[in-house]
Amino acid sequence: MDSGKPLHTIGIISRPRRSDLAVVVPPLLKWLKEHGIQAVCDEETAAALTVDCEACSRQSIADTAQLLLVLGGDGTLLAGAHLAGPRGIPILPVNLGSLGFLTSVTIEELYPALEETLAGRASISQRVMLSAELERGGKVIESQRVLNDAVINKGALARMIELELSIDAAPVCRYRADGLIVATPTGSTAYSLSAGGPIVHPSVESILITPICPHTLSDRPLVIRDSCSVEIALLGSAESVFLTLDGQRGIPMKANDKVRITRAKELLRLIHPARKSYFDILRNKLKWGEA
Amino acid sequence: MDSGKPLHTIGIISRPRRSDLAVVVPPLLKWLKEHGIQAVCDEETAAALTVDCEACSRQSIADTAQLLLVLGGDGTLLAGAHLAGPRGIPILPVNLGSLGFLTSVTIEELYPALEETLAGRASISQRVMLSAELERGGKVIESQRVLNDAVINKGALARMIELELSIDAAPVCRYRADGLIVATPTGSTAYSLSAGGPIVHPSVESILITPICPHTLSDRPLVIRDSCSVEIALLGSAESVFLTLDGQRGIPMKANDKVRITRAKELLRLIHPARKSYFDILRNKLKWGEA
Amino acid sequence: MDSGKPLHTIGIISRPRRSDLAVVVPPLLKWLKEHGIQAVCDEETAAALTVDCEACSRQSIADTAQLLLVLGGDGTLLAGAHLAGPRGIPILPVNLGSLGFLTSVTIEELYPALEETLAGRASISQRVMLSAELERGGKVIESQRVLNDAVINKGALARMIELELSIDAAPVCRYRADGLIVATPTGSTAYSLSAGGPIVHPSVESILITPICPHTLSDRPLVIRDSCSVEIALLGSAESVFLTLDGQRGIPMKANDKVRITRAKELLRLIHPARKSYFDILRNKLKWGEA
Amino acid sequence: MDSGKPLHTIGIISRPRRSDLAVVVPPLLKWLKEHGIQAVCDEETAAALTVDCEACSRQSIADTAQLLLVLGGDGTLLAGAHLAGPRGIPILPVNLGSLGFLTSVTIEELYPALEETLAGRASISQRVMLSAELERGGKVIESQRVLNDAVINKGALARMIELELSIDAAPVCRYRADGLIVATPTGSTAYSLSAGGPIVHPSVESILITPICPHTLSDRPLVIRDSCSVEIALLGSAESVFLTLDGQRGIPMKANDKVRITRAKELLRLIHPARKSYFDILRNKLKWGEA
Repeated sequence: MDSGKPLHTIGIISRPRRSDLAVVVPPLLKWLKEHGIQAVCDEETAAALTVDCEACSRQSIADTAQLLLVLGGDGTLLAGAHLAGPRGIPILPVNLGSLGFLTSVTIEELYPALEETLAGRASISQRVMLSAELERGGKVIESQRVLNDAVINKGALARMIELELSIDAAPVCRYRADGLIVATPTGSTAYSLSAGGPIVHPSVESILITPICPHTLSDRPLVIRDSCSVEIALLGSAESVFLTLDGQRGIPMKANDKVRITRAKELLRLIHPARKSYFDILRNKLKWGEA
Repeated sequence: MDSGKPLHTIGIISRPRRSDLAVVVPPLLKWLKEHGIQAVCDEETAAALTVDCEACSRQSIADTAQLLLVLGGDGTLLAGAHLAGPRGIPILPVNLGSLGFLTSVTIEELYPALEETLAGRASISQRVMLSAELERGGKVIESQRVLNDAVINKGALARMIELELSIDAAPVCRYRADGLIVATPTGSTAYSLSAGGPIVHPSVESILITPICPHTLSDRPLVIRDSCSVEIALLGSAESVFLTLDGQRGIPMKANDKVRITRAKELLRLIHPARKSYFDILRNKLKWGEA
Repeated sequence: MDSGKPLHTIGIISRPRRSDLAVVVPPLLKWLKEHGIQAVCDEETAAALTVDCEACSRQSIADTAQLLLVLGGDGTLLAGAHLAGPRGIPILPVNLGSLGFLTSVTIEELYPALEETLAGRASISQRVMLSAELERGGKVIESQRVLNDAVINKGALARMIELELSIDAAPVCRYRADGLIVATPTGSTAYSLSAGGPIVHPSVESILITPICPHTLSDRPLVIRDSCSVEIALLGSAESVFLTLDGQRGIPMKANDKVRITRAKELLRLIHPARKSYFDILRNKLKWGEA
Repeated sequence: MDSGKPLHTIGIISRPRRSDLAVVVPPLLKWLKEHGIQAVCDEETAAALTVDCEACSRQSIADTAQLLLVLGGDGTLLAGAHLAGPRGIPILPVNLGSLGFLTSVTIEELYPALEETLAGRASISQRVMLSAELERGGKVIESQRVLNDAVINKGALARMIELELSIDAAPVCRYRADGLIVATPTGSTAYSLSAGGPIVHPSVESILITPICPHTLSDRPLVIRDSCSVEIALLGSAESVFLTLDGQRGIPMKANDKVRITRAKELLRLIHPARKSYFDILRNKLKWGEA
């Protein structure tokens, strides 16, 4: 934990409409109160509870809490990362029964992890986030951080698209493909893996560029340094092409739009169970390397 | 050529709005007239010409012609195949400058190929087509033949979909993926190749099943006999999923929809240049096997 | 079972030095005797037993038996196939604890399978075998049948090799690779799968050609009809290159050697458990299609 | 160039038996003499010339020269790197007509590159090398630096091998495969690419681990930080397994041998043509990203 910020408020966000919230959250609120920690829930979580709790918007939670406790799967964590990343507050991600790769703390591990966090002994994995900007006609019209990936891809009915990749302002190559994934190492085990990309350990300072169903048989995933500035221009008369950020938001793109991706300034800090390494989680979640 | 049907009428269909139609078609009409062949153009082609020609709908062309001359790229050919396939008439596919893999006859090769066709000496490649049916609530709501593939895939913003594959009514496996391609050998060099499928020679009596960006790392393309009946059920709360037939028509799918695919009764007969083998075309179009 | 050949003699071959032979074989011999069937063991099996049994060479077993019972893993089965294939006698493959994909009958399923076989109701899968010939200086110097594959590959210390593939006497392409696998559909789930090949159902009449670590990025596995004649010429100054047949025998190759592969005349008949389909075994052995 | 070391001696090593050495080297020696630079050739190069030149062993060349000029292909460059790497002297790699990926300077670019080098304005690419050690029974029996890769693989006739990968002394996974490639980013475009690995830019501080024909379908290439210590243990009763270092030397391995790989202390400095970027060379040599 960041020594400069004593932990007095914990924000709780969750995937709404989960029946197990009513089971998990009330004892958690009680435990936190007993330990002198104030808890603030997002409105969706509060709505799922019959006990009283302080509820406010996710934005204001992120502004007041020194730790974000995320209950849910990877989708909820990604939403949490967009809040916590720019503010430099760590996330304790608790898996509620889904297949989440990032949410590696189980319900059983929640209280031990909280205790270690309060004692300043939590195991923290620092994750690079990317800043993605969509530029149209020389103007930035969208801007967001991503923990996993920025994906440009075509609609189900559209034809193959054509993209030009530039790195540090120098043209590198053209892709004729269904799309292109620009991923962090954290995102290397998400969509990029399905598209044939390698597994990149979070400590490798890199950006991973993986084409989706490339028309060109010789195309291969590309790993570059994360100090690079990546730009992807959408060529041709593109119709039904979207920029998707962390699989959460989709933004329609137009011909000649440019997507510019750089490393975000702040690292995201993810608390993970003390005795589980990155590769333990990999083996467990992906059945990776099993016979 | 089918000995039973003397060649007196040739239908001509083309990709509309091609500027080279005005150059290519008038001498072709003249040549056909000199050889005692009646030519019928589709309305799009006729509109691109300043000379007179008999014009009618593609449907009625297919009903009267003994040969379909397709001017354009693979898209135009696929449209032609849907007309010619069920009626058993051969196609002479002429490439107008695009990258078409199926349209292997160049403008230079057009007249020699026509002469060989009239003399009954044309080189013909017989291609299996598939019949694809979309079933909803026990009722077939769409039905079409495909020369390349039937593709089930998700929209750009949708999450991974879940599909269950059955072969000859026995469940085979579940796919969690962006989609699934069911292709003919002819289609093995189209979209399936981009998704990582093998090249299957048109003479192999088979159906190729290739997942698109499978979530399951151990998934592999599957080649089965084309006498099999393939059924794919869309599981779960699917939103924004489409069935696309030969890349031409997209049909929105709903949860529990089933796509049933079997070999079509008639083979499509494609005329190809006498001295170009399948592998010659493969090397040329795909730069396959080049250093 | 072949109706013309009443079943009075069963040959038994096994992987030698298996401790479970002493447990499995004596009751089996007793059962066969009670059912009026004569059993002949190969010398390796006989040596593992303390009970009396008729022992002779594998060759003479194959000449006298009407059924070959193979106890072991896929290696033992492949050896059995080389005996049974040319003679047209079926194989009952029993798995002794190994990971064999082909040996799908478990010890528990052995007696039910034998009873069905005697009753003429066994489930039989017919498998194509290939005939592989090695030609040097215009002379065939080796010839053998394979059930899985013929593999040309380089030694661990050798450089990439160059191979020219011809199909039906027409050159198709050149490979610069570690090697090349020519597989039956049965072999598609063996080495070819590791090298990136598709899964081909045994009923697809085809030969699968899969490059091993191709230098050319655009190379893809190729599926052709099994009526084709495949020829592979070893180009250049090859040193330390081997032809391996069914992973059992390795034959050193020299520059300009040719390997010629055609479909073998006889099909191999494999008895499999009545209620297990090909895809059941696939899922079970390969964990194929699992999440 | 290293400012501390004025350039007064250039060492020249080449691939022997190249007929073009007699054309290329004499004018080069003359040019160097005119510019006040002493040239020392290795014995193989000297033997190919009719003019006089100072000849000595590659080892003593590397001990006296401030720059190593390598004439040949990638094999010659790798030999040069083993000399230059530990001594911290840069290499000017000149391509003599082969397909070398690393030897990017053409004969035409040689003199401009030399002039820029003398003027201290050469474009230099710094490349990480790995230190590979083979340990048997607790003792290091081989040790060498590699610029491309350390490869463990089985002989052509051997069965699949089993390897255990540990990173920073923690077991990560087991591979059942033909072998395993541990590559630098520089080596990512060599053998690893053929085995399905990604392209990793030389500036990404990483080690790439790519299995060769993995038996386990879910195996994927892995990119880890180059500050890690990688250890690979050869399990089981391995026969005919080799450790190959930069494709140049093969060392027979025994069961329970361990290969330990860490980043070498010194970077290799490669001079490249001023106006050719890494991606220019990639496109040119690999036809990467071409249609």
